[in-house]
Amino acid sequence: MKTIKLNASVTASNDRDADALRARLNRDGKLLVNVMSSAGSGKTTLLSAIIRDLPQIRFGVMEADIESDVDAQRIDALGAKAIQVHTSGMCHMDAGMTTAAYDALEADDAELLFLENVGNLICPAEYDTGAQVNLMILSVPEGDDKPLKYPLMFQKSDVLVISKTDALPYFSFDLSKCSQRVLHLNPKIRIFPVSAKTGDGMQALEAWLIEQLNRIRTNQNHPLNGWFAPAL
Amino acid sequence: MKTIKLNASVTASNDRDADALRARLNRDGKLLVNVMSSAGSGKTTLLSAIIRDLPQIRFGVMEADIESDVDAQRIDALGAKAIQVHTSGMCHMDAGMTTAAYDALEADDAELLFLENVGNLICPAEYDTGAQVNLMILSVPEGDDKPLKYPLMFQKSDVLVISKTDALPYFSFDLSKCSQRVLHLNPKIRIFPVSAKTGDGMQALEAWLIEQLNRIRTNQNHPLNGWFAPAL
Repeated sequence: MKTIKLNASVTASNDRDADALRARLNRDGKLLVNVMSSAGSGKTTLLSAIIRDLPQIRFGVMEADIESDVDAQRIDALGAKAIQVHTSGMCHMDAGMTTAAYDALEADDAELLFLENVGNLICPAEYDTGAQVNLMILSVPEGDDKPLKYPLMFQKSDVLVISKTDALPYFSFDLSKCSQRVLHLNPKIRIFPVSAKTGDGMQALEAWLIEQLNRIRTNQNHPLNGWFAPAL
Repeated sequence: MKTIKLNASVTASNDRDADALRARLNRDGKLLVNVMSSAGSGKTTLLSAIIRDLPQIRFGVMEADIESDVDAQRIDALGAKAIQVHTSGMCHMDAGMTTAAYDALEADDAELLFLENVGNLICPAEYDTGAQVNLMILSVPEGDDKPLKYPLMFQKSDVLVISKTDALPYFSFDLSKCSQRVLHLNPKIRIFPVSAKTGDGMQALEAWLIEQLNRIRTNQNHPLNGWFAPAL
């Protein structure tokens, strides 16, 4: 498992870099999912569960962090191709950094790629990484008011995973109120409540991911009309 | 309750602004605590519990967020002086913004002031706000590996509150392993495990805060030797 250190891309045209990476991924028949969330919402735990549940799929994971390689080690231990990216203190990944990480991953046979973006609900929402799908995670302990406080992240995501639903009995998190707030900001978003611990809801999310991968594989390009809409 | 919108300070000398604000607070006999954490770790819930538990103290709270005023409304409802600060998309407060917010709060009679910084573990650690105390919160559901991933925040805090300890039975969070990791980064940090929900541990934290306030009141200035060490 490698670790690379990246600095912000020198190019001013992040959107163009993002479109170029997306076109390349579509051409190669690979699906890249940009996973965004606050620190501690369970990004690595969710990805680990997906990797374990779908042994028929070849995964590649880029773990972006300011420091440490604990997340990449966890993915590596599952036998998936993993690379650790250190962002030189930056709180997000941009498209140039994602392209460099993808090249360094050298995952020629991987079909489903995840970029685990830096953990926070602010900066990652401002940069198109070139991924075909933007997936955000909100964990139950974080509270159902987060759509009010970080609207951009909810607006720019194609999928919202509400994680740690096994903790619902212990927190005052109103699933339906939260979903309403999110759909008000982004009527097209898909919402999947899951518990990676108990497995609850994981099957629906995994079926949806496989559906997206199959679209890419059959050269249909990617159909999402989210904020990072691919220029195809 | 007011809402103000602030932009990044024009001055390049954040450290000088921070020292000036700290000197002014010391002179005025007020203690300002900069509260930093990830989104959803329970900053507002902790402050609400402290305000409720200490009716003898006059509080002032500056709530910094990218959007919304839900947090300031919660504080306002408790009868404490509150102001909502919108950071124009910025992921942190700097000393100039904090000074402007303090002026706008108009809390002449408040003794214990809290700045609830923008919710993330990255950017707020990079800017001295001028507060005499830096307090960070890590909630149990976020996981005990956070010191490995966000070392700067743990290094720059005088106090770590480990919140939501009532959730310890439901999460694999090792309190002693986490404390060891934190003390390795910052041997002088004070660690208070608390549950604002059950009240567990709150008294020790509140006693410590009152002790700091009394030092300021008796003109001893502030004794902490943390990263944002006051220039006194």
